[in-house]
Amino acid sequence: MVVTKKISLQSKGHGDIIDITPEVQKQLAEANISEGTVTLFVTGSTAGITTIEFEPGLLADFKSMWERNIPADIPYQHDRAWGDGNGHSHVRASLLGASLVIPFSDKSLVLGTWQQIVVVDFDNRARARQIVVQIMGQ
Amino acid sequence: MVVTKKISLQSKGHGDIIDITPEVQKQLAEANISEGTVTLFVTGSTAGITTIEFEPGLLADFKSMWERNIPADIPYQHDRAWGDGNGHSHVRASLLGASLVIPFSDKSLVLGTWQQIVVVDFDNRARARQIVVQIMGQ
Amino acid sequence: MVVTKKISLQSKGHGDIIDITPEVQKQLAEANISEGTVTLFVTGSTAGITTIEFEPGLLADFKSMWERNIPADIPYQHDRAWGDGNGHSHVRASLLGASLVIPFSDKSLVLGTWQQIVVVDFDNRARARQIVVQIMGQ
Repeated sequence: MVVTKKISLQSKGHGDIIDITPEVQKQLAEANISEGTVTLFVTGSTAGITTIEFEPGLLADFKSMWERNIPADIPYQHDRAWGDGNGHSHVRASLLGASLVIPFSDKSLVLGTWQQIVVVDFDNRARARQIVVQIMGQ
Repeated sequence: MVVTKKISLQSKGHGDIIDITPEVQKQLAEANISEGTVTLFVTGSTAGITTIEFEPGLLADFKSMWERNIPADIPYQHDRAWGDGNGHSHVRASLLGASLVIPFSDKSLVLGTWQQIVVVDFDNRARARQIVVQIMGQ
Repeated sequence: MVVTKKISLQSKGHGDIIDITPEVQKQLAEANISEGTVTLFVTGSTAGITTIEFEPGLLADFKSMWERNIPADIPYQHDRAWGDGNGHSHVRASLLGASLVIPFSDKSLVLGTWQQIVVVDFDNRARARQIVVQIMGQ
């Protein structure tokens, strides 16, 4: 069985990190599937998805890591061609990745206690985002 | 239902970025499955897979990011042991990752308009590559 | 059909890289499923999962890459708040990612010859770890 849903959210961009764990759990609770995988996919090329312990210090540390390793303030050929100033956003998103797959059993995601599902919006402006949530199993 | 196929391609190596979106869409069109996931997997340890906006400026930016953060011209213990000079290729591939999972619905992948599926071949020579395309759903 | 299992392992932490390929293959051999995906998921927020050629030189190179790009010896706000000194472990784990999906066909994983499945434990102490292995297919 397969159920395909969407989570709509509003991000502030600029590395905004949004916890979607409660929404994913809600979608899973509503589906009539007890064991399988939830596949999450970010539509768009300037945001990514991962898991993190969702506490303010670590969110700041994760943002700093991106700024150190893929800085916003160096020249990008994407920006020279398109002038939208978000070359760094694309490069960060491609490295982090657009998909995440989480198994569940007895309708419960196998996440750790300090492990939340997050969307990271690297774009250089606020964005409306759609995350596809596909639940497959039995 | 499960359908397992392969995409064969020829890369130039050295960070070559190859858009496989049309091939994946073709495989999906031929499968008799309307809703589910496409799992893509790169066989081999010196290439990875992700999504990116496939335009020349950004492809150059993505290559520069790899060169800055995981340079080819620093010493690697892999190279000292094996002498094939592709230690950086392996390290980059392990960071980027070998698998990508994309949901589809009504036989249509949930990709964004500016979001293409790409194989990144980090090896230091041209390579024939096989990408596994597995379609699962109903 | 879906089968959900666990691999328990003991890591040394500090970037310890553990080859779980034989365990995953054993789980697959025991499942009554011939074609589908194995989804691997690391429970916890200071370890990740990927594939690598499992040879000592490359394992050292991979560890060096993490130390260069996400150093342990710079200040982390997570550490100031929680005092456990593993801010770098969390940031590395979130970048590497907690999930990996590998197709199989005829009960055989589509891995390359020099491509092993590894858990990377970034925590700053030895840890008991649980890896979820979920096999789905027909």
